[in-house]
Amino acid sequence: MHYSLLIRCLAELIGTAVMVALGNGSVANVELKGTKGFHGGWVLIGFGYGIGVMIPALMFATVSGAQINPAMTIALAIGGQFPWREVLPYVGAQLLGAILGQLLIVLAYKPYYDETTNAEAILGTFSTIDAVHSRFNGFVNELIGTFLLVLGALCITADKIDSRADFIGLGFLVMCLVVSFGGPTGPALNPARDLGPRMLHAICNFEHKGSSQWQYSWVPVVAPIFGAILAVFLYQSIFN
Amino acid sequence: MHYSLLIRCLAELIGTAVMVALGNGSVANVELKGTKGFHGGWVLIGFGYGIGVMIPALMFATVSGAQINPAMTIALAIGGQFPWREVLPYVGAQLLGAILGQLLIVLAYKPYYDETTNAEAILGTFSTIDAVHSRFNGFVNELIGTFLLVLGALCITADKIDSRADFIGLGFLVMCLVVSFGGPTGPALNPARDLGPRMLHAICNFEHKGSSQWQYSWVPVVAPIFGAILAVFLYQSIFN
Amino acid sequence: MHYSLLIRCLAELIGTAVMVALGNGSVANVELKGTKGFHGGWVLIGFGYGIGVMIPALMFATVSGAQINPAMTIALAIGGQFPWREVLPYVGAQLLGAILGQLLIVLAYKPYYDETTNAEAILGTFSTIDAVHSRFNGFVNELIGTFLLVLGALCITADKIDSRADFIGLGFLVMCLVVSFGGPTGPALNPARDLGPRMLHAICNFEHKGSSQWQYSWVPVVAPIFGAILAVFLYQSIFN
Amino acid sequence: MHYSLLIRCLAELIGTAVMVALGNGSVANVELKGTKGFHGGWVLIGFGYGIGVMIPALMFATVSGAQINPAMTIALAIGGQFPWREVLPYVGAQLLGAILGQLLIVLAYKPYYDETTNAEAILGTFSTIDAVHSRFNGFVNELIGTFLLVLGALCITADKIDSRADFIGLGFLVMCLVVSFGGPTGPALNPARDLGPRMLHAICNFEHKGSSQWQYSWVPVVAPIFGAILAVFLYQSIFN
Repeated sequence: MHYSLLIRCLAELIGTAVMVALGNGSVANVELKGTKGFHGGWVLIGFGYGIGVMIPALMFATVSGAQINPAMTIALAIGGQFPWREVLPYVGAQLLGAILGQLLIVLAYKPYYDETTNAEAILGTFSTIDAVHSRFNGFVNELIGTFLLVLGALCITADKIDSRADFIGLGFLVMCLVVSFGGPTGPALNPARDLGPRMLHAICNFEHKGSSQWQYSWVPVVAPIFGAILAVFLYQSIFN
Repeated sequence: MHYSLLIRCLAELIGTAVMVALGNGSVANVELKGTKGFHGGWVLIGFGYGIGVMIPALMFATVSGAQINPAMTIALAIGGQFPWREVLPYVGAQLLGAILGQLLIVLAYKPYYDETTNAEAILGTFSTIDAVHSRFNGFVNELIGTFLLVLGALCITADKIDSRADFIGLGFLVMCLVVSFGGPTGPALNPARDLGPRMLHAICNFEHKGSSQWQYSWVPVVAPIFGAILAVFLYQSIFN
Repeated sequence: MHYSLLIRCLAELIGTAVMVALGNGSVANVELKGTKGFHGGWVLIGFGYGIGVMIPALMFATVSGAQINPAMTIALAIGGQFPWREVLPYVGAQLLGAILGQLLIVLAYKPYYDETTNAEAILGTFSTIDAVHSRFNGFVNELIGTFLLVLGALCITADKIDSRADFIGLGFLVMCLVVSFGGPTGPALNPARDLGPRMLHAICNFEHKGSSQWQYSWVPVVAPIFGAILAVFLYQSIFN
Repeated sequence: MHYSLLIRCLAELIGTAVMVALGNGSVANVELKGTKGFHGGWVLIGFGYGIGVMIPALMFATVSGAQINPAMTIALAIGGQFPWREVLPYVGAQLLGAILGQLLIVLAYKPYYDETTNAEAILGTFSTIDAVHSRFNGFVNELIGTFLLVLGALCITADKIDSRADFIGLGFLVMCLVVSFGGPTGPALNPARDLGPRMLHAICNFEHKGSSQWQYSWVPVVAPIFGAILAVFLYQSIFN
């Protein structure tokens, strides 16, 4: 069954919103003061983003491909596996979805944002920050992580069977990338997941809100795109 | 194979009992004094409720639909996907099942309830409490969480194939909602899961039992129903 | 394909050994002094026993049924779903397997057993202990837990399709029972898993070894059998 | 579909690199100073290596068999299930892949390696160390662990159906071996996973780097090979 571009963009929008809500919701539960999961450990954030990608894949893989990531969309277009004329609508839907998903978190956690005094903890529930504040380290980490994510996704789904178990495996891959390459930057691995919430952070109004750290913001946008392109090229040169 | 209404109601009753026993059992293990999992972390509660929904879905999806949630049953009826004349039997079975499931926890953890002196910890093993004691925040959080739960469930099972992996994915969705939207309220996401155990709490007799907090009790009943209806309407307006 | 009784008993023996090795290995890692996972939390024990049942099910379900539990074998025989003449060979293989699996743990963790001075921690890596030292509470908890385990297993595999995802779900059910009904007793849920290692404990020689607590030993043998029989009867009276 | 030896070796190389990157990445996140997952607990390392094996299996099982482990390759050859003339190319690709995977971790975590002053923590992100510094205990633990891994893998995939859920189960088996037999040595369970990174450790240059502990290095190479051979022989003598 083929869906219209409008329906597919709505699926990308909702899928990205679900991913950001489930993913950054776990960061909010761990980082914001007074929550039931406060300081509950990195494993919660691994589950938040791992399941946060697993669910949209199970929901929308057969509708829109559940790309929910501009780096994936752009890399597939460069590799000739996705039409260029649909890139802008897909990426726009993903970015809008990321903002809407983050809005759900702000609504649900409003009293806890107000109680939290650590400005970096607040920003961390929106967007990524490099733990040693190095753009170079952040770039390297986001590039490697997204390379592994896209290479894994391409190989796992190579048989085009859309097995439900594959999407569960894909969620575990994301969980593992958070566990294993999350030490330095989180990581973002997705321009929409990082830029959309950062835009919302810039206009939100919490008492102890700090800088939106725009000087770092291009890193989790540009590095994932390069990592994804590398993965598409490597995959196509070996297995196609 | 089609089952009689009686058999299907028994499946809903047993399924809801299993969910509450597995779910609130994990809260009891974490919150009650002297247990082996005491203060074992939020991740245990995520697994308790995530697997607590996964198992009834695997057990009874092909029998009764494994709705095990009055919000789901009512929203499906409003959306025209479930017959109104079966709503009352289903919801009654779910509520009774929730009470029976909670009774299993009280039986298994009786000595630990007696040793626990924190009245809110005791209530927390029955029903939800908003962490900042705000009915407004609780309402918003339960509404968003149930909206995401029902929208996810509808999209994941849209192909009507009853894939076993889908039910595993559904369990992970619930786990993630506990991890990511559990910060404020737990959350309940289900009127029966909250009201049934609260009724049992009101009549149980522990030395350090406190208030059953009835002033909050309507929130996790009403908000999930609204969230579920919103999800059914959004789903039908886009994908049907 | 049908296997000879000898092959099926070997599958039960190896399957039970794998379960005990993976399950009690996790307890050893958490409880014994100087290990890398020392005090790593209850979630590790949940994974140990959850995956400890998932793997034998995936390995041997199509060979011997992967019952790996005398309570299951006896209850199925009483319910007429397993031939009585094979009960003794199956149960014997399960008990021997449990001893062999525990032997692997003793071999791997020998230096850590020698360093551990807490006699209850040592016994806990072999067999279960009721946290409040109550045989009555232990009986209730083991009965409820095994009832939920066997009822879940019967309903999940009712379609006789041997779906691989079902066995993964079954492993998660066991994990959840450890998380949710593990507070009081661990729990055992399986006579072989408890009695076999306790027999080995009685003859092992560690410097700080304490009592094998034989006065409690009949509880995790008898209670699971009653719980399993209840589940088989409930299942057959409703769904057959 | 049958792939050329070159393509299959590339799959083994990439698969082993992915496993080491995901697996040892989790150790780096837990052990290196200043990371977001610092001291995040043994469960993160369980997920790192469990998912680290699950993903290559999902990616490459239908390409190269996703052996990604010289112990598996050599044992299958001895058992007559893999051609001897392909052993050297496979093992070479696995060793090179392990080095490349470790290189990704060094690149991503460079600033954290420089800040870490504990030399054993640094080595632990490359290769395994026996917690009581006993080669005998390490040998026993690696032998038992790899025996369970290979026996499990052979039985789970015995039907040759390449079910996706089987590979997810295989990942959980590895996770459980880390949880349950990780107390003494980690464990390695794989000569390439241990030797490749140790070679890289020997030539890396960190301020607080200590010994590469070559006197222990043969243990996680030789013991896994013996354990794998035992498992292949036991499996063939019973089930073939």
